[in-house]
Amino acid sequence: MIAKTPIPPYYAVIFTSLRTNVKGNYSETSELMDDLAQQQEGFLGVESVRNNLGITVSYWSDLDSIKKWKENKEHALARERGRNEWYTHFKTRIAKVERDYEFEKESPSLD
Amino acid sequence: MIAKTPIPPYYAVIFTSLRTNVKGNYSETSELMDDLAQQQEGFLGVESVRNNLGITVSYWSDLDSIKKWKENKEHALARERGRNEWYTHFKTRIAKVERDYEFEKESPSLD
Repeated sequence: MIAKTPIPPYYAVIFTSLRTNVKGNYSETSELMDDLAQQQEGFLGVESVRNNLGITVSYWSDLDSIKKWKENKEHALARERGRNEWYTHFKTRIAKVERDYEFEKESPSLD
Repeated sequence: MIAKTPIPPYYAVIFTSLRTNVKGNYSETSELMDDLAQQQEGFLGVESVRNNLGITVSYWSDLDSIKKWKENKEHALARERGRNEWYTHFKTRIAKVERDYEFEKESPSLD
């Protein structure tokens, strides 16, 4: 669930969105795009949550990989449907991850 | 809900977390920290969703503001409780937003 990304630097695409109430085949397309993204060169991982607001952060090794994924035809078609049908508002931010740190409990609490 | 951030560059702190089932006063502390963050110099906005996985992205004008917020005493205490009580696993990534683009429907669909 929390993406296992390499030592920085790498890139993050932060996609924040609000949905319309149009179902269409949003869920299927969304899953298909997740599968397809994972097959792209430079893909490092993804974290995604929706609860009215949706936040999806995908991680990439470099800007060129992000550009190629943006130009992928199936992905471009899905984004077009997104603008026409599924989203009222979204924002995409391309960011270079400079540092990260992690915390993980060694084992589940037995309390 | 989608943060109104200025023209890049600016910084994002991507905080991804998995909760324990400890309630404590997690919600109150979380709201208090949101309020407190908004009062800090350099704070630009925040987007947050939880649904098992939680993703909170806060936006800042520069690294120095992020550092000062990290050193804020109330925030440091809350983070300590987070490690001890509220989270089984989290990851924090500091990233420089280089580009962004936005889509917003001009008015709600009347269909």
